[in-house]
Amino acid sequence: MTQPYTATTQSHNPSMLSRKFGQEIVNYFSGSPLNRVSFLRSNTAFLRAALPRSKFLLLRDLEPLAASKTTLAWVGYETVRALVGNPFNAEEEEFLREYDSRVEIPTLVFLGVNEGDEDRGEERFEFEGEGEKYAGRPCFALDVTGEGRSLKEECGKVQEEAVKGAEGREFRKVRLDLGLAPPDAAILAQARSLLDWNNRNQFCAACGARTVSINAGTKRVCPPTDKAFQKNLQDPPFERPPCISRKGIHNIAFPRTDPTVIMAIVNSIGDKILLGRQRRWPKDFYSTLAGFCEPAESVEDAVRRETWEESGVRVGRVVIHSTQPWPYPANLMMGAIGEAFPDGEGIVLKHDPELEDAQWVELGQVRSALEGNTGTPDSKAEGAVEGQLRLPPSTAIAHQLLLAVVNGFHLAKP
Amino acid sequence: MTQPYTATTQSHNPSMLSRKFGQEIVNYFSGSPLNRVSFLRSNTAFLRAALPRSKFLLLRDLEPLAASKTTLAWVGYETVRALVGNPFNAEEEEFLREYDSRVEIPTLVFLGVNEGDEDRGEERFEFEGEGEKYAGRPCFALDVTGEGRSLKEECGKVQEEAVKGAEGREFRKVRLDLGLAPPDAAILAQARSLLDWNNRNQFCAACGARTVSINAGTKRVCPPTDKAFQKNLQDPPFERPPCISRKGIHNIAFPRTDPTVIMAIVNSIGDKILLGRQRRWPKDFYSTLAGFCEPAESVEDAVRRETWEESGVRVGRVVIHSTQPWPYPANLMMGAIGEAFPDGEGIVLKHDPELEDAQWVELGQVRSALEGNTGTPDSKAEGAVEGQLRLPPSTAIAHQLLLAVVNGFHLAKP
Ligand SMILES: [Zn+2]
Ligand SMILES: [Zn+2]
Repeated sequence: MTQPYTATTQSHNPSMLSRKFGQEIVNYFSGSPLNRVSFLRSNTAFLRAALPRSKFLLLRDLEPLAASKTTLAWVGYETVRALVGNPFNAEEEEFLREYDSRVEIPTLVFLGVNEGDEDRGEERFEFEGEGEKYAGRPCFALDVTGEGRSLKEECGKVQEEAVKGAEGREFRKVRLDLGLAPPDAAILAQARSLLDWNNRNQFCAACGARTVSINAGTKRVCPPTDKAFQKNLQDPPFERPPCISRKGIHNIAFPRTDPTVIMAIVNSIGDKILLGRQRRWPKDFYSTLAGFCEPAESVEDAVRRETWEESGVRVGRVVIHSTQPWPYPANLMMGAIGEAFPDGEGIVLKHDPELEDAQWVELGQVRSALEGNTGTPDSKAEGAVEGQLRLPPSTAIAHQLLLAVVNGFHLAKP
Repeated sequence: MTQPYTATTQSHNPSMLSRKFGQEIVNYFSGSPLNRVSFLRSNTAFLRAALPRSKFLLLRDLEPLAASKTTLAWVGYETVRALVGNPFNAEEEEFLREYDSRVEIPTLVFLGVNEGDEDRGEERFEFEGEGEKYAGRPCFALDVTGEGRSLKEECGKVQEEAVKGAEGREFRKVRLDLGLAPPDAAILAQARSLLDWNNRNQFCAACGARTVSINAGTKRVCPPTDKAFQKNLQDPPFERPPCISRKGIHNIAFPRTDPTVIMAIVNSIGDKILLGRQRRWPKDFYSTLAGFCEPAESVEDAVRRETWEESGVRVGRVVIHSTQPWPYPANLMMGAIGEAFPDGEGIVLKHDPELEDAQWVELGQVRSALEGNTGTPDSKAEGAVEGQLRLPPSTAIAHQLLLAVVNGFHLAKP
């Protein structure tokens, strides 16, 4: 590769844009250290060469094998070889021709190349494609959930060997406030979303037939033939009924990401922020309003609609602040700051019963809570005070949006 | 309703946010005049009362019935009654209990309430829910494509009657530069995306069984029973195999919108913009780079990845400018401005073969083209000059992003 790929911009300040808009907020679950080299996912020569030199992140029921509270654990090809083999030995065309719906294939997803990873002391993996070189440690995610699968036994063996590979390794639940280091959180988010998408889309939405994963786990197609229904080995492959998904490009073949909006709404005077509380949250816990973007809505439209539906507040100008991937299962949160109309600040909760309460809260009170009283609905930060306003932790984009407003994001410089 | 809903912010200037960030760009296909009142889609009492008082936008092969080049055509309930009946007579639970996969149901989607629509001179439609009143003309979209459907004959009759309802009515192809007025374009975008999603998702991605539309066309579920397999009328309903989609909330039940990024990349000095050209575009036509957001990528991450993959240029700071729904079939374009690293401006097209060419173009040249030489890859604006740089029309977010940079979006005020 001509230049090393740089995923984040933190070292690049001040630039013209940052002089005008401030430094970029790299939200938790984003800013992955991996170069996805997405164009190599269909390059079987690359995948074939990369696989034995790769490291593998294992997930069981979508929870990762971790080395510690802060760090993911990785295993080498030797640990997973018996389960995965080398599925890239065949070109994709041939692989699809051999499709047999009776055979369960473990879900293996190519995540990207870690260009900074030198941790195994081996020669650096390099691949040359179309005159450009790509180098670094290739990384895959592998689903080792055994429950309910024909591969249960093989998955169990991999789990067992992987856990005993080093002291302290275990499959860990990862959430916002459980301490996983940001680069590892970003990698996990990608792995989790893609495995979950593969799990959820075992059948073709266009025709109902079984689908199969190609492009190293990043595309699912409806194969035209199925050996499961072929009577004799020497017969031609059994042809499945026609399916529109086999002609042209269809979004159903690609991973789904649901765009959502999350917004800090400021009153027209600029001294209060609109906060809301869902029914299932503890009494003192509040956050910004949020909701799903609908088809044919701009983010700005969705911010105005969701705010009005949930709280009755009518919003005018909306500015997008930053975004955060949310891997439960695969949302993309568009964080915005919006401003209420002077005559639209009345709170009405009767439209949509989603919120139990919504309130205009003074900036000073929001600032105090951000500084000393944060947590998630399920857990409190150290030092959190009972009976006082509690807000999401700094790993949540809601926190970053509130912080931006408290720091004057909405105010023109004098 | 306590306050009229206001979809756009154009009348609301200056506010604090607009003083700091300028006025909001309401991109084409967004800013719908309809209030979606999304919480009423599952309220069958509302739907039942609204249906006979509604107006209907008809689509054939996803192209709308139009009154003229600039205006959509609407028909009343009397025109569609024979085709749709009143599907909201039954509560959803009962409707699902009666599910019979042999019966084709026309795709009917509730779009929202047009609070400003008084055009039929009738009494205003009003509905009271939970103590709040909603008033205005309810609007639905109806798929009248007959080809390949058991409802072919009924659809044909509706088409025929609708077209002869007024002079000049026809089913029209609508694209960016074909002149449909912005409010109508936003309504069409919603109708088109939702009908297309219903069409594409006739089967359950989790189990492969047929799905059915509920919530007035905005949700598709996998019914637990199917009368098609019930032997005798007096038998209990035939139970379909269990499906995980029937437990909890699953994204596959809801309309899909694919987030994409589109970006004007500025060089580090700030005097050039990166433009690219796809293979299938005419020789002089260029635009901003664009691509799909992937699972667990922030918009900012996706801008950096796509720019590097397509052009080799490495991007630092990214700021989101505005967004545009794109109903072909259901994308949400996140428009961003990004800045290249000083040592990352070399163009490499060999990573991903998507672009035939990419170039750094001087702001002055971009400004001239935006002012006098625009069009789409398929058509030119009046006065377009052969052999000169041609850029997208003002209805495209690409145009708005380029215009923002040309007007100094990236430069701090002195
Ligand atoms: Zn299919
Ligand atoms: Zn199902």
